[in-house]
Amino acid sequence: MSQTLKAGFIGLGIMGRPMAENLRKHNVTLAAYTRSGVPDELKQAGVVACDSAADVAAQADVIFIMVPDTPDVERVLFGENGVAQSLRAGQIVVDMSSISPMATRGFGARVREKGADYLDAPVSGGEVGAKAASLTIMVGGSQATFDKVKPLLDMMGKNISLIGEVGAGQVCKVANQVIVAATIEAVGEALLLASKAGVDAEKVRTALMGGFASSRILEVHGERMTKRTFKPGFRIELHQKDLNLALSTGQALGVPLPATSTCQMLFNACSAHGGNAWDHSGMVRALEIMANHEIGQKAKG
Amino acid sequence: MSQTLKAGFIGLGIMGRPMAENLRKHNVTLAAYTRSGVPDELKQAGVVACDSAADVAAQADVIFIMVPDTPDVERVLFGENGVAQSLRAGQIVVDMSSISPMATRGFGARVREKGADYLDAPVSGGEVGAKAASLTIMVGGSQATFDKVKPLLDMMGKNISLIGEVGAGQVCKVANQVIVAATIEAVGEALLLASKAGVDAEKVRTALMGGFASSRILEVHGERMTKRTFKPGFRIELHQKDLNLALSTGQALGVPLPATSTCQMLFNACSAHGGNAWDHSGMVRALEIMANHEIGQKAKG
Repeated sequence: MSQTLKAGFIGLGIMGRPMAENLRKHNVTLAAYTRSGVPDELKQAGVVACDSAADVAAQADVIFIMVPDTPDVERVLFGENGVAQSLRAGQIVVDMSSISPMATRGFGARVREKGADYLDAPVSGGEVGAKAASLTIMVGGSQATFDKVKPLLDMMGKNISLIGEVGAGQVCKVANQVIVAATIEAVGEALLLASKAGVDAEKVRTALMGGFASSRILEVHGERMTKRTFKPGFRIELHQKDLNLALSTGQALGVPLPATSTCQMLFNACSAHGGNAWDHSGMVRALEIMANHEIGQKAKG
Repeated sequence: MSQTLKAGFIGLGIMGRPMAENLRKHNVTLAAYTRSGVPDELKQAGVVACDSAADVAAQADVIFIMVPDTPDVERVLFGENGVAQSLRAGQIVVDMSSISPMATRGFGARVREKGADYLDAPVSGGEVGAKAASLTIMVGGSQATFDKVKPLLDMMGKNISLIGEVGAGQVCKVANQVIVAATIEAVGEALLLASKAGVDAEKVRTALMGGFASSRILEVHGERMTKRTFKPGFRIELHQKDLNLALSTGQALGVPLPATSTCQMLFNACSAHGGNAWDHSGMVRALEIMANHEIGQKAKG
């Protein structure tokens, strides 16, 4: 089934490019558009370079979108020379960007009005996962459309779940980013408290790994805190964007998000100290600045 | 070595009793004191019933303490008919209660003044772990004393770590309770946001288990939230006590603990709604009350 589907890809950035390349490795017929022009290597690999999103849509059955933020998706879909201009019944738009769940529902409805269908399919796993085709993909949309597109998603990711109707993929991604940020914060509080109490934070981290405090974040990000390695990884400025989506969704729905708010405050403080591009585990630095103590530093007194 | 050490046990509550029983199962000579009187079953198992903490100390080389809170440890050690009254050089006090790290340092110093030694060795794993001798034990004190007592600790627990000097065990326990509470809160925010957005929170939880949001808390406590089972487990009122220790330690050391403060606020709100004895995963109910929505409830509009 998927062998006969022609694919389109809009957005060939750090994430989109390796994802498109993975589709081509499986010999999927692929038309692509990106603002800066399709790179020569992709053309040589057989990707058809298009002049606009509308041009991609004219040539593809399934149109993947991987762009930075909500307004970018809106422009690509409904702006000048956008996808909507050449959208036909039976086509499927798959937005893999991480954007607003609420806006996503609107985009899905507008696409369906044209007889096409829509999936939101944001990913986690970063550049490494995009290159390795090991992305986690969280999908919102109908089961039938998910089933049609699944073979193509399998070429880009590994844990691929249909969560619910259109928007549910974005909700799941937001939930993921909330938990990741707040768990980083929790680990940061605990290790900083231990360190300022004169206790070896790395020994505490290791001792806690077996019990109820254990998490991927304690394992990976906790170690970054004790080893003082804040090279991304996942940049603070990107996580700030994701927490904005969480906070605006919380505001729209009336859901209090105290930890998410705290994490955004701490990211903002990192930003004030030049930390936009620190790994998100660097959130602990904002706590450290307040505590006037760095993890691993010899405690006074 | 441990076979020749006589043990004493002070405090035979929900935790202390099965721990003492596990020592007796290994034929350790055991004298015990508890305020309500040593139960007959323990006497029949060969435990020597004592009239006071001082009496226990008179008969034991290693004196274990397992009582509720900091003032209880202080009373047992230094109060009327307390351990200090009959403490001799070479004896070892092992406080397995979860109490203030700062107070612990003082207790350790006072015990050492008498030529005895002190370990703080708080546990996690609860009643189930106490009965199964599978407790995690976090120890503060000297390596030599830890090595002497280790064979006895092995009869009560499984993951047993020397974290640092006296007090380090309590610091590690506090760090554990901070991470556990704040991760519960993080999972609660994320699942509540998903549910109020009309998405199946259990599907979100399952989808997130493979990635960076994964944790023991998402696995166990997240499921309690979606299944609506708030029977303890670990009671909110006990976790409140532990967070008080964290917050007072943070205040003493000048460490900001925003998530810990938030969690305590939410526990207090649970308490106001009759939730003292809910499982600590019930913290999410405080968020739900604010959001006017329960996880799993059909979202309006």
